[in-house]
Amino acid sequence: MPQGQPEQVPDDGLTTRMRRNRPLTIVHTGVMKGKSTAAFGLALRGWNQGWNIGVFQFVKSAKWKVGEETALLALGGLHTSQGLGGPVEWHKMGEGWSWTRKAGTDEDHEAAAVEGWREIQRRLAAQTHDLYVLDEFTYPMKWGWIDVDEVVATLRERPGHQHVVITGRDAAPALIDAADLVTEMTKIKHPMDAGQKGQRGIEW
Amino acid sequence: MPQGQPEQVPDDGLTTRMRRNRPLTIVHTGVMKGKSTAAFGLALRGWNQGWNIGVFQFVKSAKWKVGEETALLALGGLHTSQGLGGPVEWHKMGEGWSWTRKAGTDEDHEAAAVEGWREIQRRLAAQTHDLYVLDEFTYPMKWGWIDVDEVVATLRERPGHQHVVITGRDAAPALIDAADLVTEMTKIKHPMDAGQKGQRGIEW
Repeated sequence: MPQGQPEQVPDDGLTTRMRRNRPLTIVHTGVMKGKSTAAFGLALRGWNQGWNIGVFQFVKSAKWKVGEETALLALGGLHTSQGLGGPVEWHKMGEGWSWTRKAGTDEDHEAAAVEGWREIQRRLAAQTHDLYVLDEFTYPMKWGWIDVDEVVATLRERPGHQHVVITGRDAAPALIDAADLVTEMTKIKHPMDAGQKGQRGIEW
Repeated sequence: MPQGQPEQVPDDGLTTRMRRNRPLTIVHTGVMKGKSTAAFGLALRGWNQGWNIGVFQFVKSAKWKVGEETALLALGGLHTSQGLGGPVEWHKMGEGWSWTRKAGTDEDHEAAAVEGWREIQRRLAAQTHDLYVLDEFTYPMKWGWIDVDEVVATLRERPGHQHVVITGRDAAPALIDAADLVTEMTKIKHPMDAGQKGQRGIEW
């Protein structure tokens, strides 16, 4: 638990309170699945603070993570119906982004990823959300579809107090450099090593 | 994504379907905070499957993780009121376990931890929950309050199809040995290194 004193106090002219309230760029990388799961767990906390949550899934198939989607949208519904927590939006590239309603084909994943990133840039400029979960967003950067330096510049220059969590394997060094908090999920043991396939409720 | 074929198929006489539906023992260990967060993310998935979720927090203070608690209990409330998802129970050692209603003092943490474990043993025997989150449960084992071999034996012999997730640093080798899935959350970078203290919505 991160209680007590920080390891060192930087000479950056900021008070602890200013530093504490700095918007964070968080990266979850590594080979294990906890990356996205932990990001959605963070969204639970944000929801409870009344934050406006925006999830953007840069994945081909919409099959995965339906559990987290349903649960987080149910929480968003409690905000609408009873004023509890914060609102939640969940957007998926795999079904065509909801603001374009254009179904994806196998050929236009790159264009869809870029369109997702442009929308995120617009929302960051407009300060739409308090917490952005950019799920599996490392991959379009890795594949050269989206320029890492542009992402880093956009994140560095974003106004206000917007937290951004990016998940996915092989996060680029420039992104890790720009991030405040980076966790690597490392595999010690996985049931697939013992010939077990994924199961409902655990893997999706 | 765990698609496709497992790396090897064991010679254990089980069909893929039997193996797929095996109850899992999952351990999230390592120095970073994603351990609990990812466990609560898993609970989101379980909730969506209609699972009965039991969270047991082996922590002194009840200050932390209030966001996840509120959100998951709100989801449990949707089960009660609208039949959505599954029921959720959340028990905290720090306030005295809810089934004993005995407030903890500084002296009796060991007794409280043991009492929590005894209740979990009773519930496992009774097949009360589909998913158990035993949060920070590695610590009472590390401190010698609860016998690791007894935990492993109880987990190995549990009836039915109950998944168990255990979080905390320094998971015992015997526990890792008994687990099906073990993830280590490794620190690459943390804002506290730069003198930043925890902030609302991110750390709790």
